[in-house]
Amino acid sequence: MNDPIDFYFDFSSPYGYLAAFEIEALAARCGRRTRWHPILLGAVFKVTGSGPLVDQHPMRARYAKRDMERAAERAGLPFVWPEPFPFAGIAPSRAVYWVDRAHPDQVVPLAQALYRASFQDGRNIAHASVTVEVATALGLDGDALTAGMAQQETKDRLRSETDQAIALGVFGSPFFTVGGEPFWGHDRMPHLEWWLSRS
Amino acid sequence: MNDPIDFYFDFSSPYGYLAAFEIEALAARCGRRTRWHPILLGAVFKVTGSGPLVDQHPMRARYAKRDMERAAERAGLPFVWPEPFPFAGIAPSRAVYWVDRAHPDQVVPLAQALYRASFQDGRNIAHASVTVEVATALGLDGDALTAGMAQQETKDRLRSETDQAIALGVFGSPFFTVGGEPFWGHDRMPHLEWWLSRS
Repeated sequence: MNDPIDFYFDFSSPYGYLAAFEIEALAARCGRRTRWHPILLGAVFKVTGSGPLVDQHPMRARYAKRDMERAAERAGLPFVWPEPFPFAGIAPSRAVYWVDRAHPDQVVPLAQALYRASFQDGRNIAHASVTVEVATALGLDGDALTAGMAQQETKDRLRSETDQAIALGVFGSPFFTVGGEPFWGHDRMPHLEWWLSRS
Repeated sequence: MNDPIDFYFDFSSPYGYLAAFEIEALAARCGRRTRWHPILLGAVFKVTGSGPLVDQHPMRARYAKRDMERAAERAGLPFVWPEPFPFAGIAPSRAVYWVDRAHPDQVVPLAQALYRASFQDGRNIAHASVTVEVATALGLDGDALTAGMAQQETKDRLRSETDQAIALGVFGSPFFTVGGEPFWGHDRMPHLEWWLSRS
């Protein structure tokens, strides 16, 4: 069995940020490939009736903030809350999907660079111009990317990826599936690794 | 710093069941004492507006069921869903608080035996008679326990423990606090251990 690990995430998801810097090493330990799928959780929440971390009872929201900062510290990753938070992941997601067509080997570096810009540098990657700046710093062609992000094919890809994720039962970020087995949350990455080690 | 680990749980909480069989070993590794606090999550949910695992969108509820069974397998613990589920934890919680007065060294064995009866044997410990049977199998005096569970002092203890938990920001099960630091969920036990290892 050599199913790849499908990694679903929203760019506005702080636990997705942590997962983005751990999943490749996990996959390598397990001898699996990964497929990165940025999605729009807002569309998912419309289906499931859930909401973002911050949109909760104050008792839970306070805990969520503290837990996130502590989890980043434990992971050894810098962490800031971007402003605004949450933000729309449309621009960075489209950038990733265009790069997946034009320069597929740059998907992981770009997605990680976008997450760093957001949750390490506090930049607002919801702005297409910021997303393009992050990409050009990696050596990607900013004009080609700007045009690519505006292509209908790119827009459709993000929509269909989000729809397919919902159809597969993805309801949060990060979310992983491998051979049909679902794992929700950064905290389930050890469960994912345990699952792969025994299959 | 030698603060004990306060362990909050509802007897109807399946992840609380897993935690109940792991927290003593964790505390021993960290050189800490534990204090076990059965609480009634129903009262907590009235404050936070949350609900039990099963009371969610079907997509999330299906995942929750699968995740729980998988987490038990990973923990090496047998697991069945008691019928009914969820159930009221009043009787087993009162039993624990009476035993805490009469035979404090029996708190952990009794709580673990009650969790086993529920999530390994599928027994309905919501019934006081079942809770008492579980306790007598441990050598406790069933008549004394039955009388103790009915004492106003026992009832008040459960109510005040639940109220104090809410006041401390406890909103789920299992929930741990140590020196004011909160940890929610079975999946945060590694975070709790990491926290204690660095303090």
